[in-house]
Amino acid sequence: MSSLTNRDLLGIADLNPEEIRTVLDLAKDLKNGEKQFNANKTLGLLFYKASTRTRVSFSVAMYQLGGNVIDLNPSRTQVGRGEPIQDTARVLDCYLDILAIRTFAQEDIQKFADYSDIPIINALTDLEHPCQILADLQTIEESFGTLEDITMTYLGDGNNVANSLLLGGVLMGMNIRIATAQGYEPNIDVVKQAQALAKKPEQVIITNDAKQAVENAQVLYTDVWASMGQEEETAQRVPIFQPYQINQSLLDIAEDEAIVLHCLPAYRGKEITEEVMEGKQSRIWDEAENRMHAQKALMACLLGLC
Amino acid sequence: MSSLTNRDLLGIADLNPEEIRTVLDLAKDLKNGEKQFNANKTLGLLFYKASTRTRVSFSVAMYQLGGNVIDLNPSRTQVGRGEPIQDTARVLDCYLDILAIRTFAQEDIQKFADYSDIPIINALTDLEHPCQILADLQTIEESFGTLEDITMTYLGDGNNVANSLLLGGVLMGMNIRIATAQGYEPNIDVVKQAQALAKKPEQVIITNDAKQAVENAQVLYTDVWASMGQEEETAQRVPIFQPYQINQSLLDIAEDEAIVLHCLPAYRGKEITEEVMEGKQSRIWDEAENRMHAQKALMACLLGLC
Amino acid sequence: MSSLTNRDLLGIADLNPEEIRTVLDLAKDLKNGEKQFNANKTLGLLFYKASTRTRVSFSVAMYQLGGNVIDLNPSRTQVGRGEPIQDTARVLDCYLDILAIRTFAQEDIQKFADYSDIPIINALTDLEHPCQILADLQTIEESFGTLEDITMTYLGDGNNVANSLLLGGVLMGMNIRIATAQGYEPNIDVVKQAQALAKKPEQVIITNDAKQAVENAQVLYTDVWASMGQEEETAQRVPIFQPYQINQSLLDIAEDEAIVLHCLPAYRGKEITEEVMEGKQSRIWDEAENRMHAQKALMACLLGLC
Repeated sequence: MSSLTNRDLLGIADLNPEEIRTVLDLAKDLKNGEKQFNANKTLGLLFYKASTRTRVSFSVAMYQLGGNVIDLNPSRTQVGRGEPIQDTARVLDCYLDILAIRTFAQEDIQKFADYSDIPIINALTDLEHPCQILADLQTIEESFGTLEDITMTYLGDGNNVANSLLLGGVLMGMNIRIATAQGYEPNIDVVKQAQALAKKPEQVIITNDAKQAVENAQVLYTDVWASMGQEEETAQRVPIFQPYQINQSLLDIAEDEAIVLHCLPAYRGKEITEEVMEGKQSRIWDEAENRMHAQKALMACLLGLC
Repeated sequence: MSSLTNRDLLGIADLNPEEIRTVLDLAKDLKNGEKQFNANKTLGLLFYKASTRTRVSFSVAMYQLGGNVIDLNPSRTQVGRGEPIQDTARVLDCYLDILAIRTFAQEDIQKFADYSDIPIINALTDLEHPCQILADLQTIEESFGTLEDITMTYLGDGNNVANSLLLGGVLMGMNIRIATAQGYEPNIDVVKQAQALAKKPEQVIITNDAKQAVENAQVLYTDVWASMGQEEETAQRVPIFQPYQINQSLLDIAEDEAIVLHCLPAYRGKEITEEVMEGKQSRIWDEAENRMHAQKALMACLLGLC
Repeated sequence: MSSLTNRDLLGIADLNPEEIRTVLDLAKDLKNGEKQFNANKTLGLLFYKASTRTRVSFSVAMYQLGGNVIDLNPSRTQVGRGEPIQDTARVLDCYLDILAIRTFAQEDIQKFADYSDIPIINALTDLEHPCQILADLQTIEESFGTLEDITMTYLGDGNNVANSLLLGGVLMGMNIRIATAQGYEPNIDVVKQAQALAKKPEQVIITNDAKQAVENAQVLYTDVWASMGQEEETAQRVPIFQPYQINQSLLDIAEDEAIVLHCLPAYRGKEITEEVMEGKQSRIWDEAENRMHAQKALMACLLGLC
């Protein structure tokens, strides 16, 4: 049992650097086959938004831990019939061992955590996407052998992924630059929190200048320009974010050994070009695979298996 | 193997008192961790109505028995394409070990039982909700150490839960009072069946007088005033059922040690007040938890594991 | 490990006769309980069309192999949000051990196979239904002890089932006659492929004469006249296919010991009569059960378990 036992992960900064280190080290051991578990636990998935990677990677992770998964399709549960969260949370707490939630408002997931004793995992909210960031950190460390002092530039919409990258990266000693259009910066409270966590001011840079932000960067990262629920803004956002597209000429500005990440799904020709996505600097498919390993490690820790 | 092996549970009175006792005793042992099973059986869930508690509690129960679950979402199966029940039943019988069905007409679940050899469990019909009642009996026994001569008053709509409480309670020697508005009494055939099963006439009381019905009661029980499919009647039913609301002043009439049950989901301020629901006499969350233990015991018995 | 390890099954003729023999022999051993496996593998189901038999039989087959199943409901995944198949395929490849797909276009399933290393199984396309045919061959062999020289007549729409029966039957030395209305013959390329695979010309007969086609036949087989997606043509197809209905008078023309198969769901009074369907020559329910055994054997082979 570690300090992670029975904890919630609502935002990446719920974990301190040592705890993130514990998860990343276990994720590596699980990927290499150096550790395995056999625990008959049940994971609930309560997803109010579509998902492939998150749903499948969480499910397989739990199966490989020896457990089972219930997909609590909200459209088919009482949750959809207007039962208050505090009641649903207490009932699910009776049956499940751990619960991953994908929803809109951060306060909804907080409410689940308040009313249940089992670990609650944020599987994406409008504010954060901490499980994605654990997989990203694992992928970066696989490439560079360390996270300390690695410079990552996130280009595009200052969304939940950007928020969590900022916090998680700073916690692990990385330098995080967010290059985005005016008005699309990450959540201001998150930026302030990241600045407070940083040991050096250059660990947190928010800029509108893509080219400058990419200079000397070792990791380029992007995400869709319009997240789920913003599809009607897609056309309008294209010219706004065009300067932040990861293409070969932007990639050429970065360090020679720079890697490219994308949390998927990707829109080729929009936030990333086909050439870069399928190119030799892309680590996008490793990153996708690491979702499973990182989440497996996280669940093992929260369930007190390690 | 007991007399329960390979049986169906379509209504609570399909079981005799000794058989209900067997299930309740096993449910207690399973809850306490004194018994466990490891059987690779597959449970099918065929639910034509929304469900949280029933679906999750059945699934986790089967997982903890060592088995697996298939959620046969009718909207995505041939069942939804008009295949006759006798064909679906025979095909499912080829693959599944046990099948729990939530549907409208009791005759539909009867048809499934007629055409398949595997155990069929009623997971709620318009007529009965026997699995709920097994959990209720377990919860009452946990509070009072016995079921014999315990007086339970059910207040509100004379629905499927009321029907099954009446039959199950009488079978186990309880006194069951149903306090409801005129025209909302339990199914008349069920009332007659309960009267026939009763050893003393006072075991079955149907009344419109809530206050009188609650005097000396040790258990107060209620359910939503409008069940699934009756939502359009909700507003009209409020004044009709208002006198049957479980609130503090009604609870004060019952025995000092009386407990309060509700099969959930609950509408605070309608059939039950927030004060009572969250108060110290509420056993609502224990009752919810016991769904899993009772159904696990039931399935273990029907599958011949014990 | 056999030659089947890590292979795809996109069409029945992807397997050679020896490989089909391997699957059928293992299916028999699994059904008899002479073999069993315990492998913690995860099967993904990606079904763009409704399904009972295929979904449940695949799921239970995998559970009995010791594994787990994820139902990738396309309406709830990114697949439904327009992610290109090559991306979805590569991501699923990271997590799953094997993937069964039910879709429309054969080229879509081919694309999944091209972009993933795990075995891809055709669980029905517009062109083929190879898993159904494995179960059919198992059922025929159970009745006659052999497949060699057995004459099967398929009556009705020259659909995906007809296509796969033609190829699979010819590969195993059977004589396959397709009796259908003009304009509803099996896919012309499939017919040519079957003729090329045949050792004797009489192994492949396509005719419009139902009665002649049934003479001396040992197996009569039919399927719905309008497949999923063709429901609006149902009424118009009834008079066209009426001569191909399997009824008692047609069955009387076949061999005395002839058996009747139907891959279900069945429309009584349309492609088959109630009398024949429930009669003593029907092997329809054995055929349904064999779906599970045949698919279990197939997955065990593709996963390299045997």
